[in-house]
Amino acid sequence: MADVFRTTRRVEFRETDAAGIAHFTSFFAYMEEAEHALLRQLGTSVVALTEQGKISWPRVSASCDYTSPVRFEDDLNIEVRVDHLGKKSVTYAFWFFHQRNEVAKGQLTSVCCHLPPEKAMQAIDIPPTLVAGLSSFQVHKDAPPTG
Amino acid sequence: MADVFRTTRRVEFRETDAAGIAHFTSFFAYMEEAEHALLRQLGTSVVALTEQGKISWPRVSASCDYTSPVRFEDDLNIEVRVDHLGKKSVTYAFWFFHQRNEVAKGQLTSVCCHLPPEKAMQAIDIPPTLVAGLSSFQVHKDAPPTG
Amino acid sequence: MADVFRTTRRVEFRETDAAGIAHFTSFFAYMEEAEHALLRQLGTSVVALTEQGKISWPRVSASCDYTSPVRFEDDLNIEVRVDHLGKKSVTYAFWFFHQRNEVAKGQLTSVCCHLPPEKAMQAIDIPPTLVAGLSSFQVHKDAPPTG
Amino acid sequence: MADVFRTTRRVEFRETDAAGIAHFTSFFAYMEEAEHALLRQLGTSVVALTEQGKISWPRVSASCDYTSPVRFEDDLNIEVRVDHLGKKSVTYAFWFFHQRNEVAKGQLTSVCCHLPPEKAMQAIDIPPTLVAGLSSFQVHKDAPPTG
Repeated sequence: MADVFRTTRRVEFRETDAAGIAHFTSFFAYMEEAEHALLRQLGTSVVALTEQGKISWPRVSASCDYTSPVRFEDDLNIEVRVDHLGKKSVTYAFWFFHQRNEVAKGQLTSVCCHLPPEKAMQAIDIPPTLVAGLSSFQVHKDAPPTG
Repeated sequence: MADVFRTTRRVEFRETDAAGIAHFTSFFAYMEEAEHALLRQLGTSVVALTEQGKISWPRVSASCDYTSPVRFEDDLNIEVRVDHLGKKSVTYAFWFFHQRNEVAKGQLTSVCCHLPPEKAMQAIDIPPTLVAGLSSFQVHKDAPPTG
Repeated sequence: MADVFRTTRRVEFRETDAAGIAHFTSFFAYMEEAEHALLRQLGTSVVALTEQGKISWPRVSASCDYTSPVRFEDDLNIEVRVDHLGKKSVTYAFWFFHQRNEVAKGQLTSVCCHLPPEKAMQAIDIPPTLVAGLSSFQVHKDAPPTG
Repeated sequence: MADVFRTTRRVEFRETDAAGIAHFTSFFAYMEEAEHALLRQLGTSVVALTEQGKISWPRVSASCDYTSPVRFEDDLNIEVRVDHLGKKSVTYAFWFFHQRNEVAKGQLTSVCCHLPPEKAMQAIDIPPTLVAGLSSFQVHKDAPPTG
């Protein structure tokens, strides 16, 4: 059954800037950490040794919209869904909440790649077991985030 | 007369990851550095003390599309244009080239904000002198990047 | 009674580099996170509003010795002790373990500072309640880390 | 003839923190960048393909002492010397100046390692040509930094 993936993250001091708020780049780090936590829950990793050799998930696209600044030691709740599951790529949507208010919303598109040693990466089909796992996070598009 | 802003950036070692390429988050750091270099060329700074007090430019939106991975010590050429100049915000477009090939393309939307000490930021109109400076980087939309 | 402070940290992907290991700078981020977690356990924060105004803990010294490389998704156990507690500063010692093997060992010296708005920081005496809290982590120097 | 290696670095916005100053971890990034610039001047790189295979320079030790905080857009002058040149390792000393005042001083010890694919790194003797190059930065210990 479809479900969202949930995780939390505290804003660390080095992630703040001289304007006193979490630097906008920090949210991309949070998205990556959440993506990797989701992959771990599926029993895999962003860099995995499989029968096809070493596979990884480089990004072809990343974006974030910021609604409200967050500060040092703010605890963020993060919701992750699979927005689109292609043959070779997956698009995740991320919602960030602080005290039940949405503070940011982002997207990552990652491509399943074979990583031959010392050679260029090559996009490959997502292995069937992972397709099944990832599709479990495909929530109906119109379902609102729950915060 | 309208012109693009050009700068360069070398990929540093700490910006690479275990897949051997520049981590996707690095490009957001490159965009910020280029934005700040552009503001310096206009005689201002991303955190400036003006007659209206301290002003800064928090982002409301950031995105990047990646075409080709780059590696440690790759020299990137970066082109910046002002894609949209609003009353209170500016949207920059960034093109990244390595050896004349486009490797990534991104956007940042920054809002001009008053930063009162210990209080919440407040969006304000971009000061007139900055409007003039920023509009000098508004290149015709259909003009292709030159690499 | 004296005790060590314990916390854990997973090596994140963006913290690795093209040599396939956690970048040496990551350990300074881990130390800061552990220091701040310790301060939270004492009921305070690295940036706290007190009766004396805003206080913070800038570092005057930071060092780390590396024994063994760690990799993406390695889980680190971290032990923190107060090595020296001065009138205005505190020196923390950090041990990093992976699968019970010591992989790194570091130190941070932080100075208690008053942070007046828009003015230079000024070193001040550590507030008495914090002295009591910090001294609870002053373990006998010759006690070995337990891993 | 012995000489110091000189480079410069501007403090970037994302390197500042909510205390309004460059975060202490930033100086380790500056040291690494300076080390790599020095290696480039010697015609090599921190990750080089040589006759012995891929070699790299992981750190066994890193430290920094901070005298004075620096802020966004401060321009730093950096002096690098080789403090100790061993058979398999090199220790660099770094001085950081802002407007001719020393603001920080650090050290890195890097070990020359063979990096066999998918295997553990192994310390090797520094190649003779690099020994010659590195020793050209061995300044007499008592010579003061010039700022």
